[in-house]
Amino acid sequence: MSEVFMGIPKISYEGRQSRNPLAFKYYNPSEMIGDKSMEEHLRFSVAIWHTFTGTGSDPFGSATITRSWDNYPDPIDQAKARMTAAFEFITKLGIPYFCFHDRDIAPEGKTLAESHKYLQEIADYTKGLMKGSPVKVLWGTANLFSHPRYVHGAATSPNADVYAHAAAQVKKAMEVTQQLGGENYVFWGGREGYETLLNTNMELESDNMARFLHMAVDYAREIGFKGQLLIEPKPKEPTKHQYDFDVASVLAFLRKYSLDKDFKVNIEANHATLAGHTFNHELHLARINGVLGSVDANQGDELLGWDTDQFPTNVYTTTLAMYEILKNGGLHRGGLNFDAKVRRGSFSELDLFQAHIAGMDAFAVGLKAAFSLLETRELEEVIELRYSSYSSGIGKDIVDGKVGLRALEQYALAEPLIKNTSGQQERLEAILNQYILRG
Amino acid sequence: MSEVFMGIPKISYEGRQSRNPLAFKYYNPSEMIGDKSMEEHLRFSVAIWHTFTGTGSDPFGSATITRSWDNYPDPIDQAKARMTAAFEFITKLGIPYFCFHDRDIAPEGKTLAESHKYLQEIADYTKGLMKGSPVKVLWGTANLFSHPRYVHGAATSPNADVYAHAAAQVKKAMEVTQQLGGENYVFWGGREGYETLLNTNMELESDNMARFLHMAVDYAREIGFKGQLLIEPKPKEPTKHQYDFDVASVLAFLRKYSLDKDFKVNIEANHATLAGHTFNHELHLARINGVLGSVDANQGDELLGWDTDQFPTNVYTTTLAMYEILKNGGLHRGGLNFDAKVRRGSFSELDLFQAHIAGMDAFAVGLKAAFSLLETRELEEVIELRYSSYSSGIGKDIVDGKVGLRALEQYALAEPLIKNTSGQQERLEAILNQYILRG
Amino acid sequence: MSEVFMGIPKISYEGRQSRNPLAFKYYNPSEMIGDKSMEEHLRFSVAIWHTFTGTGSDPFGSATITRSWDNYPDPIDQAKARMTAAFEFITKLGIPYFCFHDRDIAPEGKTLAESHKYLQEIADYTKGLMKGSPVKVLWGTANLFSHPRYVHGAATSPNADVYAHAAAQVKKAMEVTQQLGGENYVFWGGREGYETLLNTNMELESDNMARFLHMAVDYAREIGFKGQLLIEPKPKEPTKHQYDFDVASVLAFLRKYSLDKDFKVNIEANHATLAGHTFNHELHLARINGVLGSVDANQGDELLGWDTDQFPTNVYTTTLAMYEILKNGGLHRGGLNFDAKVRRGSFSELDLFQAHIAGMDAFAVGLKAAFSLLETRELEEVIELRYSSYSSGIGKDIVDGKVGLRALEQYALAEPLIKNTSGQQERLEAILNQYILRG
Amino acid sequence: MSEVFMGIPKISYEGRQSRNPLAFKYYNPSEMIGDKSMEEHLRFSVAIWHTFTGTGSDPFGSATITRSWDNYPDPIDQAKARMTAAFEFITKLGIPYFCFHDRDIAPEGKTLAESHKYLQEIADYTKGLMKGSPVKVLWGTANLFSHPRYVHGAATSPNADVYAHAAAQVKKAMEVTQQLGGENYVFWGGREGYETLLNTNMELESDNMARFLHMAVDYAREIGFKGQLLIEPKPKEPTKHQYDFDVASVLAFLRKYSLDKDFKVNIEANHATLAGHTFNHELHLARINGVLGSVDANQGDELLGWDTDQFPTNVYTTTLAMYEILKNGGLHRGGLNFDAKVRRGSFSELDLFQAHIAGMDAFAVGLKAAFSLLETRELEEVIELRYSSYSSGIGKDIVDGKVGLRALEQYALAEPLIKNTSGQQERLEAILNQYILRG
Repeated sequence: MSEVFMGIPKISYEGRQSRNPLAFKYYNPSEMIGDKSMEEHLRFSVAIWHTFTGTGSDPFGSATITRSWDNYPDPIDQAKARMTAAFEFITKLGIPYFCFHDRDIAPEGKTLAESHKYLQEIADYTKGLMKGSPVKVLWGTANLFSHPRYVHGAATSPNADVYAHAAAQVKKAMEVTQQLGGENYVFWGGREGYETLLNTNMELESDNMARFLHMAVDYAREIGFKGQLLIEPKPKEPTKHQYDFDVASVLAFLRKYSLDKDFKVNIEANHATLAGHTFNHELHLARINGVLGSVDANQGDELLGWDTDQFPTNVYTTTLAMYEILKNGGLHRGGLNFDAKVRRGSFSELDLFQAHIAGMDAFAVGLKAAFSLLETRELEEVIELRYSSYSSGIGKDIVDGKVGLRALEQYALAEPLIKNTSGQQERLEAILNQYILRG
Repeated sequence: MSEVFMGIPKISYEGRQSRNPLAFKYYNPSEMIGDKSMEEHLRFSVAIWHTFTGTGSDPFGSATITRSWDNYPDPIDQAKARMTAAFEFITKLGIPYFCFHDRDIAPEGKTLAESHKYLQEIADYTKGLMKGSPVKVLWGTANLFSHPRYVHGAATSPNADVYAHAAAQVKKAMEVTQQLGGENYVFWGGREGYETLLNTNMELESDNMARFLHMAVDYAREIGFKGQLLIEPKPKEPTKHQYDFDVASVLAFLRKYSLDKDFKVNIEANHATLAGHTFNHELHLARINGVLGSVDANQGDELLGWDTDQFPTNVYTTTLAMYEILKNGGLHRGGLNFDAKVRRGSFSELDLFQAHIAGMDAFAVGLKAAFSLLETRELEEVIELRYSSYSSGIGKDIVDGKVGLRALEQYALAEPLIKNTSGQQERLEAILNQYILRG
Repeated sequence: MSEVFMGIPKISYEGRQSRNPLAFKYYNPSEMIGDKSMEEHLRFSVAIWHTFTGTGSDPFGSATITRSWDNYPDPIDQAKARMTAAFEFITKLGIPYFCFHDRDIAPEGKTLAESHKYLQEIADYTKGLMKGSPVKVLWGTANLFSHPRYVHGAATSPNADVYAHAAAQVKKAMEVTQQLGGENYVFWGGREGYETLLNTNMELESDNMARFLHMAVDYAREIGFKGQLLIEPKPKEPTKHQYDFDVASVLAFLRKYSLDKDFKVNIEANHATLAGHTFNHELHLARINGVLGSVDANQGDELLGWDTDQFPTNVYTTTLAMYEILKNGGLHRGGLNFDAKVRRGSFSELDLFQAHIAGMDAFAVGLKAAFSLLETRELEEVIELRYSSYSSGIGKDIVDGKVGLRALEQYALAEPLIKNTSGQQERLEAILNQYILRG
Repeated sequence: MSEVFMGIPKISYEGRQSRNPLAFKYYNPSEMIGDKSMEEHLRFSVAIWHTFTGTGSDPFGSATITRSWDNYPDPIDQAKARMTAAFEFITKLGIPYFCFHDRDIAPEGKTLAESHKYLQEIADYTKGLMKGSPVKVLWGTANLFSHPRYVHGAATSPNADVYAHAAAQVKKAMEVTQQLGGENYVFWGGREGYETLLNTNMELESDNMARFLHMAVDYAREIGFKGQLLIEPKPKEPTKHQYDFDVASVLAFLRKYSLDKDFKVNIEANHATLAGHTFNHELHLARINGVLGSVDANQGDELLGWDTDQFPTNVYTTTLAMYEILKNGGLHRGGLNFDAKVRRGSFSELDLFQAHIAGMDAFAVGLKAAFSLLETRELEEVIELRYSSYSSGIGKDIVDGKVGLRALEQYALAEPLIKNTSGQQERLEAILNQYILRG
């Protein structure tokens, strides 16, 4: 097949002074940061849906984007052309991974059997492309939200036939993910929630969702799927309230239904802010609870109330995210998936490259700043000192479980001189600036 | 002691046509709603802090409110006068309960021992007032957020001496609550959270908070305290991020630390909306998880981003709240505590009465509408019908755990005709209006 | 043409006890409220776009709604069938008006000339339907946001060819509105704003928008169009920042460019809340500035950050809106247009009726409560008394412009006893409840 | 008087590698950026209120901060000590300006006359300190929001006596500002707005506010005050709705009452975001309307809904702000006033220095990045090219007012090929990163 992105060379690193829009200024894949290369640390991934099926339509306007791979009358031909273009794109950017929904890569058929067949055909075709290519699958998933059958939910639909259909889609999508060597399988419940409590049985829906996930765990074991299973939290949109609101909600759910050993979370920056949290809060909470699985790398606009899925360019966000990821010992099987779409007004193919470059550079800056912060331990030392009272004396007794209210009251009645020290937030923010600007 | 609210009689029910600002238009305490009186259903409570210590100060202005009971040079005299006034107020409104923090009812001493002594003195005084009075204690709590020692938290302070002091305060406050026959004991962690992750060890803080609550459970058992232990979720304010963000966060926490059998939640309307949820969402979630303990009855302004703690007057909110409460079989040991403050511009003593009357009437309207909805089962039937596919066939197999992905795929491949039915949100909202307006 | 909404009779008033989903419980069109009937007060209008072109698609899912009038292969046939169905629908509901965008009622052609021709053909067809029908046009407008040419704006596009195209569309839409006897012509600038200031010349865009509106005023005069010209404020969505953010922004703009005599505003409830205002705030501000033109009657979800365009069922909102409208002496040439869409899950044709009934009933309740409040003057008297200090003495001197800082200082130095009185917000909210619940 | 900030030297520039918390890393006052020094560009100012009267109290907790200058039993002695400390602090930081409210610098007396006297005494004292000192007054203002008399507003109070008192306070504060050579006088209407429309006459309040400002303009002329008069927009907090919501609202108001020649605006970052705008949006809008007067340099937390008034450390915000300021030809008589408070947990005197250093460094980085962007014209050229269609042909005719709808329709009917170009937002954000990181 002929080249799609004509005239666009493989993107290479030119350094921070470069004014070439088609070059990395900060992302230097082979540069060693500690004992791993940038590429190994960052494990970037392209999202097939936004980048290869996005049209720029929004609730008030139709498509602004037309791609050369959309010119095929036959949907299977189109699907193959799209995947071929994706491989060229991913390769030119030097990105190691991609992610997909079943319905991004293959068309929905008239029957479920036909849909399965189409998906298998594209999976086989993709497998062919992967031979001799460095491109791998970070994760696969089933789209259980776009088709009108899922109007009231999939695993939480009030309609058991819909539930069954969703189960079948997950089964097939998981098989295909396994065939392609996918390192993770993701559940995002865009329709798992409610529009109004006036017509909702939340208890049954929640129990049914748990049953669904148990079935998925069982099936993964049955077929020997070794990838991580991930739940992606999002508080709202499209649904008014989504059950997987945030990391804490997912933890509550997993623990209730004894699923906490089987699932980790896939954290998206823009979903975090829609839930009222910072991105790094969600990463941190997942990390200390042992469920930080993978990351959807994008950014929102905190003054807008919907999921803008912008390419991540804010270096504060990328630095604080990489700080958590490095403290997690890296993302392990997970990666940084650009679940981000070019703006509706950025409709050229050039924009696709420029947007990914912008995001990759921003994460490279963040990685270096975060690594340096952890290497100097400048923040770590502040924190250790701040909590040092728990390393000895009454503090240690508390941590060791040796005291109760009675003993603590006795201690407090003796009136130890309470001496709090400043939290120094402003100084710490200034230090953060220094690390980032040194970038 | 002489009458404080001179010229204000016991508030009585005059019916919906009354234009008397000092009468109930909807709240008729002895009216039977099903097999319980309105009074028994609603279990109202006055919040000592807002109503008896509130001054109308805000971050941009000083006190607009001066109360007659604040005219005492000696803080103990003042505390007694305040409690005496409270009893007169509560009695005139015919409210059965009140709630308090340790530091609302008694002054902080120069030492912890002195604080304990003051608190005991006022507890004894209050016990005296309770004799021969119908007024009871709904819940007590310790104020672990106002004093500067708690600047960085109490049970999550980086300073073990602060932790010990907080523990001592809880111990004493629980004892006093028990002495006064309090039916619940509440934990609200206004400073349990962080301002910036740059200086925070969230994992240690979270573990320490769990240790603290375990100590409280142990001590409650030790002294034979029979009241419910409650955690009150709030997402932010005063702290940037609070660990008890919402009901789901509390559930995740309780389950992690095996505290889920020991605690229920105290849900505040305005805290729900600050977390991005409706009030009835939080009640519903707590109910189906078996942790709906008690309610802080107020309302926020959804266009403002802070805790306005307004008196609850919105009858939609009260109706949907009462719907959840009735489905819970009532509040049991919990109640509806007016954690609400008169506006800064509502500075007269008359406003205190008018505000409580407004709130009580709004809940009475809500109770009647909700009861009627449950009696006719108009919404319940819609919901039962909507989920009826889970009562037989494949749906029942799903619920009974008889099928997995493989069986469901087989079922779906047979292409059952998927027939979704409308969710009818608009019709249901119109029905809700009819029940409320019938009021 | 055969009946579309088979089996659905003309909707009639059955009173508040009715359980018939296809009857009005509160809206009784001929009931006199003061010297006007409900129908004359409320001037309802159906929005062709949501109700006759809405599909239930959202950013995460495709159409859930298919209508019988969408079954025509030829777009002109379809457009006629749609309009015929609309007339049946509007007539069955007894609604006097409808509103339309050019592209709702007629398809976009391959050329502008063809688009003009299509639009004229449907306008002629509609004129035919109007003969012998009571149905009238409240307002028309041009859709300058859906087509990809408007990706960067219409009157604020950086591309002068786009600007010219938009001008041509407005010219034709205004002509058609005039032909159909439309009482208003509306400008909603969904793409008039920016996505990022990094690529924006706001000053030129603002000047160009003013030039555009001046041209429209000139052309309206030239052709003798007697309708009101209206601007519809909205702060954001689809565009990150829209220039017509809220009523105040529109006033600033109109005054800057000497357009304030030529335009009024069309206020939408959900746009108000997205801008951080209540609906009645925007109505009030428009009213006291003499620009309250017309209303888009819907409601948003204040916990969601996008334009949900729900049918208005909240009787607080409708009561406070009608209060402003009655104080305005009514809407004059404007009306209450249901710029509201059935929920994606409310996909049946029945829902279209139920949703409009819900909205009409809610406004009928609001009208009666507001009228009664104004008749008793219960709030008006509170306000008059509250500001009475400006009717005599120093207050009158201030209002009459007789004093400056020097005289006021002299007055204040004499230390008049400053006696503020309570604002009594809680009592007033309780009064509002009484008027609504009396409903 | 003895040194207050013992052991803290004059803060000097040490460069980006410095790890000295008491040194500038980026702010080098004498460094020339174009034809002005950094110091001349940035015109920093200390806010007396936050920095010298702030206590760390919040709605849920009491003071965490005690300052050495608060140790005086006599309020006049305390006021003098505070001002003396302020001069030492400002001088050590090398900041050229400070700003004050009347009641920050002098106590409220028992009578207005006494308050005037106190204020005059401190003004005289301050004038003494200014002799031989480089420290100047950027602006003065009157505090018309803290005292309970202003509970319902000042210039919009329903009580004419309050209005008169406010007028007297403004008169005196303006005189004192003039005596101290203040370059601006500011109006912030924290209580000018409403809590509920149920008790509000917005029209009278708005007219009265205009009368108040006209009186102020007249008096400023009368006494020959040469400073700029500024209005500071803020949407809400403490009041539910404030009339000076944002720059657009202020423009609408000024234009309505013919005050637009007399006032400019003082824009605060955190107020911008509370209104739903970016800081640079508000600066930009003010700039192109010729009213960009001065800046309150702080930052908010976009995930929190109240005015956090944090020290500005985000270099994106400072860069984009400086871009607008440089395009404005600088701030002229205005400046960058740190209307920012150390966090409640940053209670040491060291934090005061560290916080100002953090803010000054962030603005220095922003100045350099913005200056460089304007020097290379990288963004300017993108914008010029983007709008170039208005420089010739039909675009120029539009701008020159030579065409109306009719002519534009003729043009459009000829079907010019509409060729939109990408907005390239992602590329521009990447460029911005390069300029900042070069910093």
